[in-house]
Amino acid sequence: MAESAFERLRAELADVVDLRGAAFLLTWDQATMMPPGGAAARARQLALLKQLAHERFVAPSVGRLLDAAEAEVDAAGLGEHAFEADYLRVTRRDFERDRALPLDFTRRFHGHMATTYQAWTEARAADDAARVIPLLERTLDLSLELSEHLGAADHAADPLIGRSDHGFTVATLRPLFVRLREALVPLARRVQACDPPDDAFTRGPYPLDQQFAFALERVREFGYDTRRGRLDPTHHPFAIEFSVDDVRITTRGRVDDLREALTCTFHESGHGMYHQGIDPDLEATPLVDGTSAGVHESQSRTWENRVGRSHAYWTYAYQKLLRAFPEQLAGVSVDAFHRAMNVVRPGVIRTRADELTYDLHVIVRFELELDLLEGRLAVRDLPEAWHERYREVVGVAAEDDRDGVLQDVHWFSREIGGAFQGYTLGNVLAAQFWDAAQRELPDLEGDIARGAFGALAGWQRQRIHRHGRRLDPLDLIADVTGGPVDPQPYLTYLADKYGGLYPEAR
Amino acid sequence: MAESAFERLRAELADVVDLRGAAFLLTWDQATMMPPGGAAARARQLALLKQLAHERFVAPSVGRLLDAAEAEVDAAGLGEHAFEADYLRVTRRDFERDRALPLDFTRRFHGHMATTYQAWTEARAADDAARVIPLLERTLDLSLELSEHLGAADHAADPLIGRSDHGFTVATLRPLFVRLREALVPLARRVQACDPPDDAFTRGPYPLDQQFAFALERVREFGYDTRRGRLDPTHHPFAIEFSVDDVRITTRGRVDDLREALTCTFHESGHGMYHQGIDPDLEATPLVDGTSAGVHESQSRTWENRVGRSHAYWTYAYQKLLRAFPEQLAGVSVDAFHRAMNVVRPGVIRTRADELTYDLHVIVRFELELDLLEGRLAVRDLPEAWHERYREVVGVAAEDDRDGVLQDVHWFSREIGGAFQGYTLGNVLAAQFWDAAQRELPDLEGDIARGAFGALAGWQRQRIHRHGRRLDPLDLIADVTGGPVDPQPYLTYLADKYGGLYPEAR
Repeated sequence: MAESAFERLRAELADVVDLRGAAFLLTWDQATMMPPGGAAARARQLALLKQLAHERFVAPSVGRLLDAAEAEVDAAGLGEHAFEADYLRVTRRDFERDRALPLDFTRRFHGHMATTYQAWTEARAADDAARVIPLLERTLDLSLELSEHLGAADHAADPLIGRSDHGFTVATLRPLFVRLREALVPLARRVQACDPPDDAFTRGPYPLDQQFAFALERVREFGYDTRRGRLDPTHHPFAIEFSVDDVRITTRGRVDDLREALTCTFHESGHGMYHQGIDPDLEATPLVDGTSAGVHESQSRTWENRVGRSHAYWTYAYQKLLRAFPEQLAGVSVDAFHRAMNVVRPGVIRTRADELTYDLHVIVRFELELDLLEGRLAVRDLPEAWHERYREVVGVAAEDDRDGVLQDVHWFSREIGGAFQGYTLGNVLAAQFWDAAQRELPDLEGDIARGAFGALAGWQRQRIHRHGRRLDPLDLIADVTGGPVDPQPYLTYLADKYGGLYPEAR
Repeated sequence: MAESAFERLRAELADVVDLRGAAFLLTWDQATMMPPGGAAARARQLALLKQLAHERFVAPSVGRLLDAAEAEVDAAGLGEHAFEADYLRVTRRDFERDRALPLDFTRRFHGHMATTYQAWTEARAADDAARVIPLLERTLDLSLELSEHLGAADHAADPLIGRSDHGFTVATLRPLFVRLREALVPLARRVQACDPPDDAFTRGPYPLDQQFAFALERVREFGYDTRRGRLDPTHHPFAIEFSVDDVRITTRGRVDDLREALTCTFHESGHGMYHQGIDPDLEATPLVDGTSAGVHESQSRTWENRVGRSHAYWTYAYQKLLRAFPEQLAGVSVDAFHRAMNVVRPGVIRTRADELTYDLHVIVRFELELDLLEGRLAVRDLPEAWHERYREVVGVAAEDDRDGVLQDVHWFSREIGGAFQGYTLGNVLAAQFWDAAQRELPDLEGDIARGAFGALAGWQRQRIHRHGRRLDPLDLIADVTGGPVDPQPYLTYLADKYGGLYPEAR
């Protein structure tokens, strides 16, 4: 019997997914193992693998197989959530999106981003924002062009947001961000006005190797499987996957701040467990990924914050920490350590922000992205607008552009628009998912205080991870929470938590 | 002006070379970093990259560009050793060789080798040679078929040998091996009859991390550049390259034998320096590789044996070793250490053989390969023939087939024929090249005793490494030594060395 069009499509695209997996290994190696000399050839090899994956995915033959497979599945009358239907829905969406970009545009875009990235590294070192302004102007033009290629929408940012958070738009996100801003800015101000707890003991020194070994033991207890993954240090931590059975995480640390390696490793383990938890039957299909940036981030923030910065968790883990660092932590109580893990300090750097002020950094970026795309802010005014918005939202401003507009790599390596909303969506969803887990698990906090993480990890796997991309983000959120995205659980959690830690701030 | 056919060919093949480089990274990671779960996807991804590289190389368009580029270069009247002429000579040879293999044959061959490799790992664990005999019979048939596809020759082994050692044939190698056997067997017997020196102090224990750190410092002194490479532990050490600027080496060690990590690391650094020394202008061309297995091995054996097991070298390095391991080496003199580095013990394992008996292991395999290909030995008789030949040549035999015919992976992962001659050619060439270096460098032994390795490394780079594949092996050998391959310098070296260490054996 002849193979079905669906099976032929699946075989074709297995190679595409494997090519992407191979490219991810090159990326991982570049960030963890590669000697400096390897950079030039690596850039070539990585570009080549990505180009091959792209070409094979948008090939006309794939389009024809998609058409035929859709007809087959229609004719077979499979249910809406049959595997084949999910496969074709997601693949069709990816195919149309990737195919919509003319080769000429893609070349111009990538060429420009390579130039811009290089200029950014130099501009940042020299604190010279003026140098990248003309490049950023072109990035904005190209971002608008990209948005147009991707298809008609109510807002230029919508197609860009949709690529990482399918189903979300400016119309749904803007009110969410406004609500967060209105609630979080005053709460953060009140907390910042309180006396900070003593956290001198976090400054060690703590040898990095010991920190990484301790953090790895902890995330293995969470459920991160090192038979199917590994942990390595890098500059900018990330999780990355070459298959469901090889999902690696990275971390960084500071000898003079014990918290960095802990929170980074916990965070990346959440991303890692998401990918390790995807149904192995989705391996080598376009469905083998997290369903969206926001849902992915919800998993990392859950382990970083809801578990890793909770009093319940340290009730369990602090004795282990004391055994690892008895001298540095001599005389420090678990309560004092928990307070140190939750110090709130207004800062100008997003990636080092505490849990409470983190979203303020995202709000600044999200608002600036929309202002730029809407033409209400000119790129030449962006450096100053950054500082102003920081004073207004975060309450502090950087002294230079290096920690201002030049802070994040995002706008200097990709389009403007769609880059940041996922971070805050992750926090909001983490709270909604936590509430759902609490409803469905008999004693979630108690389990965590006993170091029994299997209930939470198993619940995540069952309700979220195993689906991969079979459920679209909004469907998955509705399925798990019973409703739409809602910031209230998150705001309640933050008010309760910081009200408890800082009673004067209530 | 239109691009020349040569430039278009070069651009096409740059991608092929980069695909191979990417595949090599997957191989390196598999042997050093990959968690066990990664194996299945890695096998798929690696096979895919190799297949893509192969398909792109033997594409009809490449054949047409080759024809046109050859015509261009002919018309331009470039000299015989112009870059373009070298490029086309080597590329044409590779192209005809790879294209000669029908797709159907390649599939059967790789499918069979995958099955055989798996069966070998099980047969070896169970010491059950009978299980692989039928598979090995098929391997022999496929090896003969491969030889035929590769083209007419005087001996079935010639095309197989030629793939790794171009220009060498059974007609030239058999007399070389006979001569080595006639000289080495009696010398080894005489040395083995002597009392072995005391080497109890090599058994430590020596912590592996310290051994690897010490060995890495040493090979950096040799000239192995860690800005363009790195050293990691693995099971079966190798050197591998992703570009001339990213050439990695691997090693292994034993807590209870200090010599293993030293000799493995020195050996692989020789391979690594060869690749690091290739003219960067050859990057991303088919010329960016060592010219042959034998010449490559000559470089690794030079640093492992001619330098790393010499008295001159340890005159320099032993003080450093003492500082690294003061307790384990307390009271041990440099002379005693040098003798321990050169203990001769009859053994049954090739990869653990001392310098003197190493070639005896290769001789056994080379002779058996020819007997099989010539039909003078049946595969079913091979396990027993292995033991007999070991008794005859090495003077000892294994007690089982695990350390007998099942010892090496070679015949269970690739064709029979052409797999082993490079090891011994490397030893022979290392001696010829050493003599040439001594003629051209004012004080080679003195430099080594002072830890000044730049003269030797620079000479190798100038005379051997930088050429990559621009010079064919026999041309390079003639260029460096002034003549053909000649075992006499090697035999003289061994007789002098072991005569000095074991005066009773002269």
